[in-house]
Amino acid sequence: MAVRTIEVRERVMARNDELAADVRRLLAEHRVPAFNLVSSPGSGKTLLLERTLQELGGRLRIAVITGDVQTQNDADRLSRYTDRLVQAVVTGGACHLDARQILTALEEVDLANTDLVFIENVGNLVCPASWDLGEAAKIVLFSTTEGEDKPAKYPKMFQQSSYAVFTKMDLLPHLTFEMEKAKAQALEVNPDLSFFFTSARTGDGLDEWYAFLEGQVAEARRA
Amino acid sequence: MAVRTIEVRERVMARNDELAADVRRLLAEHRVPAFNLVSSPGSGKTLLLERTLQELGGRLRIAVITGDVQTQNDADRLSRYTDRLVQAVVTGGACHLDARQILTALEEVDLANTDLVFIENVGNLVCPASWDLGEAAKIVLFSTTEGEDKPAKYPKMFQQSSYAVFTKMDLLPHLTFEMEKAKAQALEVNPDLSFFFTSARTGDGLDEWYAFLEGQVAEARRA
Repeated sequence: MAVRTIEVRERVMARNDELAADVRRLLAEHRVPAFNLVSSPGSGKTLLLERTLQELGGRLRIAVITGDVQTQNDADRLSRYTDRLVQAVVTGGACHLDARQILTALEEVDLANTDLVFIENVGNLVCPASWDLGEAAKIVLFSTTEGEDKPAKYPKMFQQSSYAVFTKMDLLPHLTFEMEKAKAQALEVNPDLSFFFTSARTGDGLDEWYAFLEGQVAEARRA
Repeated sequence: MAVRTIEVRERVMARNDELAADVRRLLAEHRVPAFNLVSSPGSGKTLLLERTLQELGGRLRIAVITGDVQTQNDADRLSRYTDRLVQAVVTGGACHLDARQILTALEEVDLANTDLVFIENVGNLVCPASWDLGEAAKIVLFSTTEGEDKPAKYPKMFQQSSYAVFTKMDLLPHLTFEMEKAKAQALEVNPDLSFFFTSARTGDGLDEWYAFLEGQVAEARRA
């Protein structure tokens, strides 16, 4: 029984990897980088995207694929800032997006006239770590309200991510959260991780984030 | 392929329900209520348990089954307050505990000399909603830092829970979180939900929580 489940799971994962390779090829053809935003529920993915669309939307053509479990709350919030929004509906108790959903969603995106794609994954620190979506990189959001031990408890997610964005930095004075400890724990599971330190509410640290995104778009164009 | 996966999944779930019934029978025999704590990562399950063990540990014999994904951080933290701790190791990318793990963990618990069992599930608002562990009730923790829309986005978890414990209430003055909106969203998906309003840091609201637990233990003994 257990063995059978694992076999089926492996075939599903292998198929996902093929489709992720298709996504990656398609994005490379159009020289469009895609970033897969992963995090706990409520860590601030949608708010970071709202701010980013507001600030960079005039300079970069940004598409967003958003994967809510049940509602279209996130899609509603983001559609105020972009007309390049595709909602991938996640059904049947699934806890992550998969590459097939991204491939389908990208059919709705005019990639020839797009500079950058964000994928807003399901809020979950376990499942999305195992699913390649063909993204340029996974970016994990790490809310300062969640405690410093998240990388140790969810190592795969931090290992699979290239960047970690600390969010809700404005709350630090009211928390017992120790930033040095959090960074050390993150680097212990993934020494290659780069950090951003942001508050989408106050705007602190967002300039570095925007500069990073513009740099990634420029680099993809040169590739 | 998809159909095959679903068939296997259904058989796994059916087997889980049988094992959950075994857990429920075993706990009923000993008149011990078990509460399954579910939430996002970092919402404060372990801290609430630490405080509860500190405060009630002298009056009630409390066992804890904790399910960390990768570390034994939570087990280490809790073992300072109880010698009735069993760690269920969650491996292979699983995002929840299952009834078999609880049944196995309960072999380590002297139920004849236990008043109350807590199950600290994996921090995840999707997967644990689908798995009956034989508990008396699921209790969802809802951190005020996560945004009011969690019940709408993760309705199954709030539907499956009998109680919602708001955590980190001490941060409310620094957040845009609207409690009335959060409660309304929770009651919309589950009108039978009862609430607690707590800060494990300041101790606010914990007296109601302790009184509830003592009431549940007394009720189970009368049953």
